[in-house]
Amino acid sequence: MDILSAIKNRRSCRKYMPEPVNDSDLDAILAAGAAAPSPANSQPWEFIVITGKDAKIKIHDEALRCRNFLFEKSGWKWLTKYDLEFVKDVPAIIAVTGDPKKTGADMFMDGGNNAWRDACSASVQNMMLAAAALGLGSLWFTMFDRNNLRSLLNIDNEKIPTALVFIGRSSADLVITPRKDIKEITRYIK
Amino acid sequence: MDILSAIKNRRSCRKYMPEPVNDSDLDAILAAGAAAPSPANSQPWEFIVITGKDAKIKIHDEALRCRNFLFEKSGWKWLTKYDLEFVKDVPAIIAVTGDPKKTGADMFMDGGNNAWRDACSASVQNMMLAAAALGLGSLWFTMFDRNNLRSLLNIDNEKIPTALVFIGRSSADLVITPRKDIKEITRYIK
Repeated sequence: MDILSAIKNRRSCRKYMPEPVNDSDLDAILAAGAAAPSPANSQPWEFIVITGKDAKIKIHDEALRCRNFLFEKSGWKWLTKYDLEFVKDVPAIIAVTGDPKKTGADMFMDGGNNAWRDACSASVQNMMLAAAALGLGSLWFTMFDRNNLRSLLNIDNEKIPTALVFIGRSSADLVITPRKDIKEITRYIK
Repeated sequence: MDILSAIKNRRSCRKYMPEPVNDSDLDAILAAGAAAPSPANSQPWEFIVITGKDAKIKIHDEALRCRNFLFEKSGWKWLTKYDLEFVKDVPAIIAVTGDPKKTGADMFMDGGNNAWRDACSASVQNMMLAAAALGLGSLWFTMFDRNNLRSLLNIDNEKIPTALVFIGRSSADLVITPRKDIKEITRYIK
């Protein structure tokens, strides 16, 4: 699939077939993540590939706790309707952690210390596009408390878990989420 | 070009041919940026396409000021060697701004209010991959003070400029930056 089509056609997947993701596909997805740009090539990311049932159940339980906490805080009704059962059955989950020390000169800037995280986000996007190229669905999932996820996955205190990338073959037709027309969101300085 | 190749072969470009970027290529790149995932499809990004010489010179001047400020703060020698003359001649610059209000439930989380920015970073990565697919070089550039850039580009105080994406045809052979092997940065929970 060419890039422009893949970018436009990638959709968030919340229902997965039970079949595992091939090791070769996982390696290609990880390599795509590792190929993201980063400040002075600091490569601030590390990946944890989770395929074990026990860990998935713990991630589900944390997501459920987090969802309930967020509903209490926000009162947002959609949170109560967000069914998280599927989390237990996602074929593969890639946790992305970032090292805030591996940021660039932005550490000295007002509102800075973001470049390490920006790089991790580019890495997530690369992985989701690579998954799409391999015919797999994916989801960028962040419904967790960073400290709880650290405990669950034995992540160093110095690293920050930024995202969980869910990957697997979709079991449902995915709907393309509509986007604003670029004319609405772009201006020009000629 | 297929996605996996484009992801692996994308390289940062710091020398551009003077020819302008076609409007149709710019539109495809903007559409790729607008197709990024975001929390509850909030689409927190806006784009400013800069092709005018005056604005490029102002961006150059701000980058130079910022570079000198960062050298004073850090003492990092590479900063003094970072030639910024090319900034005046980048064929097209896309400024990406994000709206921190368009974040997700992460606003209630410890260490949160990142999802809007993560989405903007995914948008930048999409644009750079789209540029690569169109045979164009690109660079993710952040050497600016956010308040100064706001003034230069007339950006609302409520929006945060997260990145400048430089785009144009490369005038030099680009070197692929080496990456760590995925084995070094990945562990498995099976």
